[in-house]
Amino acid sequence: MGGVSSVTEAGGSLIRVSEIFGPTIQGEGVLIGQPTVFVRTGGCDFRCSWCDSLHAVESRFRADWQSMSVAAIWSEVERLSGGRPLMVSLSGGNPAIQPLGGLIAHGHARGYRFALETQGSIARDWFADLDVLVLSPKPPSSGMAFDPQALLASVEAASGGPRTVLKFVIFDEADFAFAWEVAALCRSLPVYLQPGNHTPPPPETDDAVIDLDGIMGRMHWLLDRVMAEGWFAATVLPQLHVLLWGNRRGV
Amino acid sequence: MGGVSSVTEAGGSLIRVSEIFGPTIQGEGVLIGQPTVFVRTGGCDFRCSWCDSLHAVESRFRADWQSMSVAAIWSEVERLSGGRPLMVSLSGGNPAIQPLGGLIAHGHARGYRFALETQGSIARDWFADLDVLVLSPKPPSSGMAFDPQALLASVEAASGGPRTVLKFVIFDEADFAFAWEVAALCRSLPVYLQPGNHTPPPPETDDAVIDLDGIMGRMHWLLDRVMAEGWFAATVLPQLHVLLWGNRRGV
Repeated sequence: MGGVSSVTEAGGSLIRVSEIFGPTIQGEGVLIGQPTVFVRTGGCDFRCSWCDSLHAVESRFRADWQSMSVAAIWSEVERLSGGRPLMVSLSGGNPAIQPLGGLIAHGHARGYRFALETQGSIARDWFADLDVLVLSPKPPSSGMAFDPQALLASVEAASGGPRTVLKFVIFDEADFAFAWEVAALCRSLPVYLQPGNHTPPPPETDDAVIDLDGIMGRMHWLLDRVMAEGWFAATVLPQLHVLLWGNRRGV
Repeated sequence: MGGVSSVTEAGGSLIRVSEIFGPTIQGEGVLIGQPTVFVRTGGCDFRCSWCDSLHAVESRFRADWQSMSVAAIWSEVERLSGGRPLMVSLSGGNPAIQPLGGLIAHGHARGYRFALETQGSIARDWFADLDVLVLSPKPPSSGMAFDPQALLASVEAASGGPRTVLKFVIFDEADFAFAWEVAALCRSLPVYLQPGNHTPPPPETDDAVIDLDGIMGRMHWLLDRVMAEGWFAATVLPQLHVLLWGNRRGV
């Protein structure tokens, strides 16, 4: 069992956590290079073909996840950050499944900030309390269907609150066209494009072989496409953590 | 002859240009990943030991530089960008030597934006007209002296205008300490830290050998230092263009 059903399962206050790690730098998108502690939640309503975090997605890893209170999560975030406020990155899985409003309020009261990344399939009223919301609609190569109404509901839920941006993982021409079309749906949002990792880590291992040349080749292709189209409002970035650490987890 | 004397030499309107290229992505700092056209000016008041742009610095390359009017520069920027507005990156050498106010006004009227990177040794009133000002004080490893009054004059000249940030190239512990101290002088400015390239291109060649492992090793060291100090307000980024293209010029 996984996905949306976990909303009920987690109850009003417990949060299902796959891992908490850091401080390290954010490796992707709008916060690239910024020190952060990651709180990765367990469970996802999607099953992307190239998912790089299956250990936080597939129900067979549920035994590795913990249902934690805000106080327990916060104790670990404070320990890792030495009590010095920084950006906390809420990722998953799909963290929008979890009841995170209380955690955000708790951290804000202590000077911490919060970024959340989600595919935009589930809108939450507490999106408005975030500092940064990264909406990452999944392109055709993921094998998942896109629901524009759900994405717009997420944008609307965050309205007046965080800095909201779009991020697209791009593997091929169809993904590129998808990003262009979805960006046109949400014209006010900054766009980040990122080449996909076609050698994601198998969830059972921690340090698998990675095809860096292939990833860099896709980065070059993506840059060529962006420049050829004159899509100068887009920012193009690789996954910096993959360049630094390959597929290793917890960094 | 080079350096400050070129202010007189260039006159009120001609700008000494080493190269104009793009569109490509900005590889460093606050605008990392953003499409841009570079206008690299010729001449510098500094001679950093590890300079990666000596072809735009040393007077022996003067014959490769052109004194260009705003109209001539703009014609090339428009050609490269296909007439689509984007961010123009003014770099060098030290672009603060050149009379760039007219170019900025010309481009702004056409919807383009301007970022400038300088060591902060020379303040200009037209800094206030920029969209982004990157002040990159040179650390001890450069072999250059630091003048805090000149840096503060640059911050003041830009006041009320662009988004101003600090960027530091870091080679060693002394550079790291320098960045920390200068950041404390300018507490309101965001800080970007970047590992140095100890194998910069010799200015006579276009595609020299580069020690990527060494650069990545310095990146890991820098991340460890930042996390150990809890300097969570700093953003740590490599030179992305070096990872993508090595030392190749014009990309």
